[in-house]
Amino acid sequence: MPNVDRIYTACLIIIGDEILSGRTQDANLAYLAKWLGVQGIRLSEARVVKDDMAAIAEAVNALRIAHDYVFTTGGIGPTHDDITVDAIAAALGVDVVMHPDAERILREHYGERITDTRLRMARVPAGSTLIANPRTGAPGIRIGNIFIMAGVPAITRSMLDTLEGALPGGLPMLSRTIGAWTMESRVADLLARVEKAHDGAQIGSYPFWREGRTGANFVIRSVDPAVLASCASALTVALEAEGIDATDGEI
Amino acid sequence: MPNVDRIYTACLIIIGDEILSGRTQDANLAYLAKWLGVQGIRLSEARVVKDDMAAIAEAVNALRIAHDYVFTTGGIGPTHDDITVDAIAAALGVDVVMHPDAERILREHYGERITDTRLRMARVPAGSTLIANPRTGAPGIRIGNIFIMAGVPAITRSMLDTLEGALPGGLPMLSRTIGAWTMESRVADLLARVEKAHDGAQIGSYPFWREGRTGANFVIRSVDPAVLASCASALTVALEAEGIDATDGEI
Repeated sequence: MPNVDRIYTACLIIIGDEILSGRTQDANLAYLAKWLGVQGIRLSEARVVKDDMAAIAEAVNALRIAHDYVFTTGGIGPTHDDITVDAIAAALGVDVVMHPDAERILREHYGERITDTRLRMARVPAGSTLIANPRTGAPGIRIGNIFIMAGVPAITRSMLDTLEGALPGGLPMLSRTIGAWTMESRVADLLARVEKAHDGAQIGSYPFWREGRTGANFVIRSVDPAVLASCASALTVALEAEGIDATDGEI
Repeated sequence: MPNVDRIYTACLIIIGDEILSGRTQDANLAYLAKWLGVQGIRLSEARVVKDDMAAIAEAVNALRIAHDYVFTTGGIGPTHDDITVDAIAAALGVDVVMHPDAERILREHYGERITDTRLRMARVPAGSTLIANPRTGAPGIRIGNIFIMAGVPAITRSMLDTLEGALPGGLPMLSRTIGAWTMESRVADLLARVEKAHDGAQIGSYPFWREGRTGANFVIRSVDPAVLASCASALTVALEAEGIDATDGEI
């Protein structure tokens, strides 16, 4: 049952020089954001940090206090640039230890190809539990409110699958989009007025240019289905009163 | 001329609920990272923050001291959810004023369709200069080391075009990729050894699974072309000594 009395927030720390160099396009943030939304948890902040012990530790320590949940992606493989476990252990002031279940999983996965290097992926901050990775064996790690996940999107998603429904959350954020072929600057006052009249609803305005024309999608968000519906209908009426066709859904 | 004596760093603050809700995939970080690389500036950190005055101001004040350059994207349009200018002015403790050149540009762009709402896009933190926007008129804003840019990628890119070559930087980071059809865990020790033997070079290991096979791309980075070349050739030799074909370039 969702807890209706408070808002649960999460943040994501994306760890990796490959993101900051522009080599790799992050594909985890948007997926995690939507996944958290379903769990009744709001992604409130994200940071991208270098493969650097101090940078990772600083972000972890700032954010684990500010949010209900901290997710990290990246840096948990077997190579020398995979330093997430060490950095988070340092941030928390705990040792790095071998997790016996992780060691067993890796030994089963690799069989006789197991090596000390591959067993590095069984190293965890002391006090951790594991997040199953049905896809490639090497598990994710949970310590306190920190969830340490892989950077490779298919693996991250398989780890999130195993966490489905396991995290306490509040009411899920609902959204509804009204699209219109208009310049957002033409309807800016109207948007502000409709939002103000609907407590508990926010309206975001996202302009676009397509087929030589200007349009905008107006995204209404609320945890209350009744507020969402009445805000969407008020916005539709207000747009049409200005002679602007409003589409129910994104255009 | 690049300044060879120090490293210039930048950070990016991505402003927008639409990114944190997962509705919109950011497309500015990777582009900016590569653009900065050419200018001899390293993107060292990025944050994604909500459309919230306090969240934006906190990020700006933390990061403008830590980096040579701060870039922001998003929240500079004409609608009620566009609060970047107000938040940055508040962070800096300066007023928001109308910029006369921005007002002129908007009046020319809109002609008789100019409205007070559209003129909101001429509001800047006091002391700002403008960043030209050849694409849609409404300019970006520079104040001190902060560059306030649009969120729509085509507009952000046109603003960066106008900044090309204008920002002092150091030596550009060079990179070279060696690809191999091997598990990274098989060569982890080898990678660490080659990196250690080449001062001023970093090697990142990026595994992938494709066509039912496991491979990895090893990205070598250095500001020194000679170090880059010798590290790449040492890595190739070391891989082939293990019986692993090394491809010059990403696979």
